[in-house]
Parts: sequence; structure tokens; C-alpha cells
Amino acid sequence: MDRELKWIGQSIEQLAETGKKDGAYWRASYTPEDHRGAALLQQWMEDAGFQTYFDAVGNLYGRMEGTSDAVILTGSHRDTVANGGKYDGALGIITAIAAGSALYRTYGKPQKTLEVVALCEEEGSRFLSGYIGSRAIIGALSPADLQEVDEDGISLQTAMQTCGYYDGVLPKPREDVEQFLELHIEQGGILEKNGIHVGIVTAMVGLLIGDIVFHGAQNHAGTTPMDLRCDPVPAAASFVNTLHQWAMSKGHNLVCTVGNITASPGKSNVIANHVRLTFDIRAGRQSLLDEAKETIAFLLKKFAAYTPQVTYACQETPVPMDQEGVQHLETLADKQGAAYMRLASGAGHDAQIIGQRIKTNMIFVPSKNGVSHSPDEFTALEDIAAGYQLLKAYLKESAWRRKEADDGR
Amino acid sequence: MDRELKWIGQSIEQLAETGKKDGAYWRASYTPEDHRGAALLQQWMEDAGFQTYFDAVGNLYGRMEGTSDAVILTGSHRDTVANGGKYDGALGIITAIAAGSALYRTYGKPQKTLEVVALCEEEGSRFLSGYIGSRAIIGALSPADLQEVDEDGISLQTAMQTCGYYDGVLPKPREDVEQFLELHIEQGGILEKNGIHVGIVTAMVGLLIGDIVFHGAQNHAGTTPMDLRCDPVPAAASFVNTLHQWAMSKGHNLVCTVGNITASPGKSNVIANHVRLTFDIRAGRQSLLDEAKETIAFLLKKFAAYTPQVTYACQETPVPMDQEGVQHLETLADKQGAAYMRLASGAGHDAQIIGQRIKTNMIFVPSKNGVSHSPDEFTALEDIAAGYQLLKAYLKESAWRRKEADDGR
Repeated sequence: MDRELKWIGQSIEQLAETGKKDGAYWRASYTPEDHRGAALLQQWMEDAGFQTYFDAVGNLYGRMEGTSDAVILTGSHRDTVANGGKYDGALGIITAIAAGSALYRTYGKPQKTLEVVALCEEEGSRFLSGYIGSRAIIGALSPADLQEVDEDGISLQTAMQTCGYYDGVLPKPREDVEQFLELHIEQGGILEKNGIHVGIVTAMVGLLIGDIVFHGAQNHAGTTPMDLRCDPVPAAASFVNTLHQWAMSKGHNLVCTVGNITASPGKSNVIANHVRLTFDIRAGRQSLLDEAKETIAFLLKKFAAYTPQVTYACQETPVPMDQEGVQHLETLADKQGAAYMRLASGAGHDAQIIGQRIKTNMIFVPSKNGVSHSPDEFTALEDIAAGYQLLKAYLKESAWRRKEADDGR
Repeated sequence: MDRELKWIGQSIEQLAETGKKDGAYWRASYTPEDHRGAALLQQWMEDAGFQTYFDAVGNLYGRMEGTSDAVILTGSHRDTVANGGKYDGALGIITAIAAGSALYRTYGKPQKTLEVVALCEEEGSRFLSGYIGSRAIIGALSPADLQEVDEDGISLQTAMQTCGYYDGVLPKPREDVEQFLELHIEQGGILEKNGIHVGIVTAMVGLLIGDIVFHGAQNHAGTTPMDLRCDPVPAAASFVNTLHQWAMSKGHNLVCTVGNITASPGKSNVIANHVRLTFDIRAGRQSLLDEAKETIAFLLKKFAAYTPQVTYACQETPVPMDQEGVQHLETLADKQGAAYMRLASGAGHDAQIIGQRIKTNMIFVPSKNGVSHSPDEFTALEDIAAGYQLLKAYLKESAWRRKEADDGR
């Protein structure tokens, strides 16, 4: 186990080095950095006894043939955001290779087929829509989607073709995959704050994202008495306050952020004409998002004098993780004596795409100071250990269980 | 009286025409528009029996010699803002000429000397500091001030010299002026809202203008639980709310505006790093501005977790109008049977500069819909009538009183 952790630690550093560009980490998809990273991962997979292949969008697989064709899939994405860190995505691939390798050394050929995967373009840092690799796996990527262009006007299709991946035919949806498991850093501070090493993800949160414009009557700040004003700034402030208090009352079940607020024309001596603010509300339960929408509608009625206009830019329902899988992971964690907790994932992951078609679960390990998408991203090996052990135990139970039972007969 | 009002109405239109530039009204100081306007005003003053002269900064005076050298001064500014209206400033000069002319026709030579004045550069639309004409009158304009430049880099001194005003010596402070009276549109909606035709100004409001920055901890909007955030947006919103409620409790004695608020980096999915907001608080009593400052300090202690930083960009104490003059105006308005009210001026006027050295009073007439600094600026003649009659009565009492008493002997 110590040897495995040591290899994981070394591999995190080695893989990060391949993704360095102009002194910062940025492994954008279909770039030289991506090519170097994929080659290194492929080498590690082959060293560990996996047969490797790329699919038509550039997902890198390592396959360990079992006695059955049913596939247990595990891994994460290999791209990073610009000026990102070493752990986001990478840790889920490296721990998957380490676990598969260790299990193979101990138990030999699995009963079910095990595949590890290094998915491409999850972050959307080159092609904004993101989740390219996982969307391909469930058949949710269309030829039209390949016309999306990056900042330089290069299409996704051209980028893939340049790397020799895409030959005009998209991958078929993976009907053979029974379960997907992704280990990932939490990207938040809940585990660290609670002194817990393993998070068992119950759901990918749903989203309610949009903006609201409050309208007022632009006027002179000095000559317009308070009772003759229609000032949208105090109205918007009161809205933010009430929405915030409502969100606070939901504890850890919901987050609510007003990340942007601007008054126009924005002059200190002019009563604003209008105020625009954004909202970003996330919850693991749809009922809470429905309540959020009702709360916004209720508040906007209260502020009808400011003719508020709301625009919903994004409404996504939560994606629950496989509930049997959650219970199974808890049983295994109990056996290991690991301190774990259930939590919803506030960030987006490939698991929320794959989870739409395939039984999917996620394991979180702590993020130091809750930081991610930053060079300061860090998780100590002792904080990875319990999560890695749980991943390994789960894969053993899923892919080697009958084999072991057979051996025991 | 009807003939006088008719002349006032016609003159407003005629003067406005001289200030047209590219289809909009903008009589900036020391420009061809200003030259045309000043020439027309000079003509009217001479037609009315005034002797005219320009001082070294370009203030245009019409002088009606009395038996005493003590001067009663009345008028307003002749410049307008860009895309301004016909009434702001102009009305105070035109009513002054009309009143002096009518009084002269009825009572002949005054006892005290009457001067009407068309002041230059009050608005600061060409030279930002503004109040050039009134500052010159009280000796508050220094040679260094003349080095201020306009948007084209032309200095105030050069602009004045080009018009033939400034010859290297600034005007001496006017020690001979006993009283200054300015009639002006309200530029707010209080008179109109109350159905009252005359406002007697008690004070030029003092100002408390500045900004506050609230600091938070920038973080992921999805993965940071509500109780682990340091989000400056709800903090700033709560501050705005409380300050607004405090200001509302002061009725018509104070105005408080947050005209600008911005969150940085201002992304919908990122908890803001900091929020900056401006405040503009005005009151006719210094005690209220002191209370405002204490209230801000108290609230910032409450939000100490967001290490708020306050910067006061401008702190001006209120300039009270001459209180004897206020009472005198009320007595005269009572005699006329005019509906009047006391009010503080929320906008800046030459009267607040001149009032620092000379007994000064102001009369307000209504602004339609409270609008000013706009082509929509409008005051109907019937809304000017009572204010004009009060101006005339005040000038008669001040400049002709002893004459009339003498005549009566």
C-alpha cells in the first residue's frame, strides 16, 4: 500500500510536468501538452498490464480483459484548466491505474473486464461546452457538436483529426459498461473542515443560473427626495439580502451566489437607472431548486415597482449517483474503518454525464484549503490513502468478486 | 406683470437659441455660443437702463446706479451643461433683468445700487472645478486656478484671454455687495409634488461623498458551503439596506444614494473577491452629516469580517442662506398670498460660493417632473410668476425701500 501511494505521488508530479506551458499548468485537449500526457499515461497503463487504445474522440483506455465482457470503468479526465493544478482529473486516472495494477498483481485476471480511462476535454478550457469525452461515451455527442470552435477558430473536429483520433465516425455509446467510478479531489473545503478523508458523493448538484435586472428612474442624487425616488440599488440589495438569508436556512443542502452586481450608469451622484445581478444556485435535490425558483418569483413580485426581469441561463436537474453504489461504498468504508461522509458535488464532473446512462459513483478526497483550478491545488498522500483504498476495495468487489469466490471454492 | 412674464418667456427661447451647438443646447464658457449669449444679455441689460461691463473672468454685469454705493446683486450663471436645457441659470438672469427694468420704470433710480449679473462657468462642463464667476467675486480664484485645462488642453487663462477678458489681473473681491439673491429652477420634484410655486432656500446642502470596499475570499460558487464563505456581496447588500433605511428615517432632511456598486471579478460562478460601492449623502444640517458618518463607521464595525475600507472623496459642510433674508422672503410671500415652502438645495449653485462671504438667498421655482440638465427642462410661465413676483418685491424692498420712504416723506 505504501509502495502504491508512493507511486501515485511520483506519478502526479511526473504527469504535471508534461502539462507545463509557459511555466504554468495547462493541459488543454488536443495540444502537444495533451499528447505528452496521454503518452505517459498510456505507458503506465501498459506497464501495469492493461491493453491500451484511443477512441475516436481521444479518450485513452486501458483494458484488462476479464472472463466476462461486462465492463467496470474507472478514471477521470486528463485535461486541466489554464493555470490549473496537478490533482484535478489526474488523481482519478493515476489512482485507477495503481488500483487495477495492484489488484491484478494480487488476484490475477479479473472476472469482469476492468477498464481505466483518461477522458479528454472535461473542463471546457479549450472547447467551452466541455465533457467531450464523457458525452462520447454515452452517445451524447453529435457531428454538429464537432463544429464548436476554440478561441483560434479551430473546430473540435479539426483538432481531433490533427491528433489522428477522429476519422469521420463518432464512438458508439458504450452499452457494455456496467458501472463507472470516479475518484476526484473535492474542490471544496467540507471534508477538510470536518477532518474526514473520504467523501461519498450522493449526487451532482443541479443548477439554477441566471440574472435579474431591476429598473428604476435615473435622477439627480442631490435634488430627488428619498420618497420621490425609484432607486433600484436598495431594491436589489434587499433582494440579495433576502435570497441570502433563505439560502443560509438550507444549511449544507444548497449554495447560492450573487457573483456579479452592477448599477448603470454607475455614477456616484446619479440615482441608478437599473441594476443587474447574477445568481448561481446549486442543490443536490430538485425540490430545493424548485423552491429557489419559487422564492425568486415571490421576491420579484415584492419588488414589482422595479419591473424586475429574470433570465434563466441554465437550469439543470441534479444527477443522483447510484444509490446502491453509495451504500456499497459506505459498507466498504466501514470495513476499512475510514471516516467518511456523504456529500453532494457542487462542481461539475464527467460522472454527471456518464451517470445519465450508466450506474455511476464518485469518491472525493480532501482539497487543501478547498482550493482547485489553481497551482495551489494540493492533497497530501495521507489524505489520498483512504479514498484510494476505498476505490481499490470497490473495484475488487465489482470486478474480482466472483473470481475470488471461484478461487475460494 | 403679464407683459413682464411674456418677455421672460420669449427671452428664455431667444437666449436658448444662441446656445445651440450641433442641434443641442450647450453654452460652454468662453465659446462662440457663450459670446452670442452674453451679447444678447448685454443688449437686454442696456435696453432696460443698466450700464454694462465685463469683469476680468468674464462675468457680465448690468449696473443701475443708486444714491448709495452699496450694491444689491442678483442673477445667475449663463453657461449650461452639454445637452442641457433652457432654464438652468438662464431664468435667474432673465428674471433679474425683467425685475430691475420694471422697478426702474415704476420707481426710477434706486436708493442702493442694483447690479444684475450673468456669471460664467458655474456648471464645470468645460473647466471641471466650476463656479469660476462666483469664486472670482469673493476672491476665491487664484492665478494657479487659471492653469486648469479643458478636454482639449486649453487653460482657463488662455480661454479667458482669447475672449479678451483676462489681462493678467484677477478681479478684486466685491466688498461693495451687501446682498446676493439668485432665482433658479429647483432641479428636483419637491415643489411640483406639493403643488407649491415658490421655494425659499434655507441652505445649500453639505456633502459626504466617498466609497467603501468590502473584502471577501474568492472561491468556487459550487463547492464552497454557505457557512464556509466570506462573500462580500451579501455583506455589501446588507450595508446598503441598513444605510438606506437610516436615510429614509430622516424624511426630507437628507438624501442618500448608492449610485455605483461592482463585484470583482464579477463572474456568476465565482464568489466575489471584493465589492466596491459609492455613497453620496447630502443634508442641509451638519449634524445630520455627522450622524451619517457615525452611522457608516458603526455599520463598518458590524461588517469588520469583510475588512471594509472607506474613502471620503468629498466632505463639504452645508452653506446656510441668510436667515434674515429667509424670513424677509417669507413675509413678502405671505403679503403676496403665494404658496411657499422652505427647502434645502440638493444641487450646487453659485449662491453657495457667494454665500460664504456675502448675505445670500435663493428662490426656487418648480421644475416639471423634477428634470434638469436635459433638453426636457421646463417651467411654465404660471409656475415662474410667483417666484418672479417675490424676486421683484425683494429687490424693491432692498434697493428702493429708502427711496420710496424718501418719496413718501
